[in-house]
Amino acid sequence: MSDTLTQLPPMDVAGRTERLRERFEAESIDALLVTRLPNIRYLTGFTGSAAIVLVGLDEMVFVTDGRYAEQASDQLGAAGVQPRIEVRASQAGQRDVMRDTAAAYARLGLEAHGVTWAQQRAFAAEWFADAELVATEHLVEDLRRVKEPAEVARIQAACAIADDALGVVAPRLVERPNERDVALWLELEMRDRGATGTSFDTIVASGPNGAKPHARPSSRAIEGGEPVVIDFGCVVDGYCSDMTRTLSVGDPGPDARRMFDVVRDAQQSGRDAVTSGADCALVDKACRDVIEAAGWGDAFVHGTGHGVGLEIHEAPRVAATARDTLASGYVVTVEPGVYLPGTGGVRIEDTVVVTDDGARALTRFSKDFLL
Amino acid sequence: MSDTLTQLPPMDVAGRTERLRERFEAESIDALLVTRLPNIRYLTGFTGSAAIVLVGLDEMVFVTDGRYAEQASDQLGAAGVQPRIEVRASQAGQRDVMRDTAAAYARLGLEAHGVTWAQQRAFAAEWFADAELVATEHLVEDLRRVKEPAEVARIQAACAIADDALGVVAPRLVERPNERDVALWLELEMRDRGATGTSFDTIVASGPNGAKPHARPSSRAIEGGEPVVIDFGCVVDGYCSDMTRTLSVGDPGPDARRMFDVVRDAQQSGRDAVTSGADCALVDKACRDVIEAAGWGDAFVHGTGHGVGLEIHEAPRVAATARDTLASGYVVTVEPGVYLPGTGGVRIEDTVVVTDDGARALTRFSKDFLL
Repeated sequence: MSDTLTQLPPMDVAGRTERLRERFEAESIDALLVTRLPNIRYLTGFTGSAAIVLVGLDEMVFVTDGRYAEQASDQLGAAGVQPRIEVRASQAGQRDVMRDTAAAYARLGLEAHGVTWAQQRAFAAEWFADAELVATEHLVEDLRRVKEPAEVARIQAACAIADDALGVVAPRLVERPNERDVALWLELEMRDRGATGTSFDTIVASGPNGAKPHARPSSRAIEGGEPVVIDFGCVVDGYCSDMTRTLSVGDPGPDARRMFDVVRDAQQSGRDAVTSGADCALVDKACRDVIEAAGWGDAFVHGTGHGVGLEIHEAPRVAATARDTLASGYVVTVEPGVYLPGTGGVRIEDTVVVTDDGARALTRFSKDFLL
Repeated sequence: MSDTLTQLPPMDVAGRTERLRERFEAESIDALLVTRLPNIRYLTGFTGSAAIVLVGLDEMVFVTDGRYAEQASDQLGAAGVQPRIEVRASQAGQRDVMRDTAAAYARLGLEAHGVTWAQQRAFAAEWFADAELVATEHLVEDLRRVKEPAEVARIQAACAIADDALGVVAPRLVERPNERDVALWLELEMRDRGATGTSFDTIVASGPNGAKPHARPSSRAIEGGEPVVIDFGCVVDGYCSDMTRTLSVGDPGPDARRMFDVVRDAQQSGRDAVTSGADCALVDKACRDVIEAAGWGDAFVHGTGHGVGLEIHEAPRVAATARDTLASGYVVTVEPGVYLPGTGGVRIEDTVVVTDDGARALTRFSKDFLL
């Protein structure tokens, strides 16, 4: 593992809860029940699969089950977060802890996008029958939009690993591997460099398969003279990377070259539009205008991008219908594409961090089309 | 890839929707909106990440976005499922399709455990303002409990791949690899045999790390004379496997041997209790009694098992508080463990299919402790 990974700068996990509390008044809540795991990780450092956290104005209660007793204590301690940790094996036991704690709060926020309707019904009927439950929208997710420098360092490390992996794997396309082989090679190279895993299922879509934006790698052998869409990323200390390149072993002919040039120009146009204060919808438009001018507006079938962090898809959306505005410290993708059913597709994507006067690409691999 | 994988028997995907409709009357619903992706896959064969399906008594409407237009058409066609497929780029467009379709239904079921509270609120206010929304509980999940033979064949194939992978990797523990190496080797061997990925994050927990049931593989080198808990699985055609073995390179001493023997006996006792008609709580008790008799009741900090299929954790739960009863065709894990903080842990797990007169293990790797 490289020095970069062993010397990642420390994050200020403990300070995040106070920033969350500052939002309670505007939401008219006395406390927030945090149930979405990425949000729990953000606020506490806990990486397990089962926990519920109640954040009040003066307290924080962390409930998990016996599988995670030791891990919770270790990870919260390491993050400098000191809630009351309660370990209860059963749902009923966890409910009782939370019910007793929440008795002090008249208005309890739930994460409306994090709890299921069934959970909300159980909370209202059994857990918190005396409280008014408030549907909050993305409170923790909104904090997570602006990445701390130490978070950017992790995303950057994940992007650098992906760059290096593609640097090793791309030349091997000449061996005519099948799509699954290429996906596996990339994943191995990323793991070998210290990634804990992929940030999503790797896409390797060759020839006509490229027309499916989310194709799964198949046993199709990659031929010369056809575009291959490779969309992949990895995770470093919980943070994701995301990059797409379209490559061809040998000249795929003028039609494919034109598709590639249009998408590359669109992607550059989108990247140029990214800066603090820019509307996400305008970044999308910057890409889309180039593709529409080339006559392929209908073939760009998805939004331009999305935030990246502890989740591979997080706020903000970068799309025609988005109402978000970029701010310094946001990390987003710019990934226009053109997809022609039966023929193939091209997509080019960078993960970039928004700065005061533009954006800095975190994915750096060459955008050359021809191998 | 082996012949087993290329010759998996066909599944009767198209027949499942009719079995779902048979449950509508008891639920007092006219239609069900299916939003959980594993349920959509079960009913249609679609493997993408974005779709909504409305199942009425006489129709089925499948809505997705442009990224999945071609894939949806391909996969639903291959599965012999013929809904009306509607492709809409925007949420608003998808809402309009569903609103028009649902206008025919007075009582519309939602998957209470599949929709978020925010979604339910939007459905009630904007999508289906004229319908009565009904909170249904696990309708499709309950159908999924009994596996068709063709589904068991897929789980069996995934289990066989995991067996083979451990057969290659276990002997290499003598090389004193670190935990991450072992996890990576297992994953590679599984992929090499045709698995599409792991069914969950592989656990390799050596020495004291074994005390955390859900430990993440670390850079800790595996020593001789200590138990190593290896819990892993893979996915074949969407279906998961799940197996845990605890191994030791050389004799870990009498205390660890006793832990191992107790857990092995508990696991055998649990397996012996699995049969059609058995209460899940009694299967748990069969394991737990053995561990309690040895004085480690408090150290068995989780339930005995869970269903396995399209999801790694699905119905039924096999736990002390479970109220489910096993039936022929269920596939469940039996995985007791003992965890001693600071010392280490032992867990042994098989995935088994319930039969009329017992259970058949789908994971077959040796349970020998010593390498």
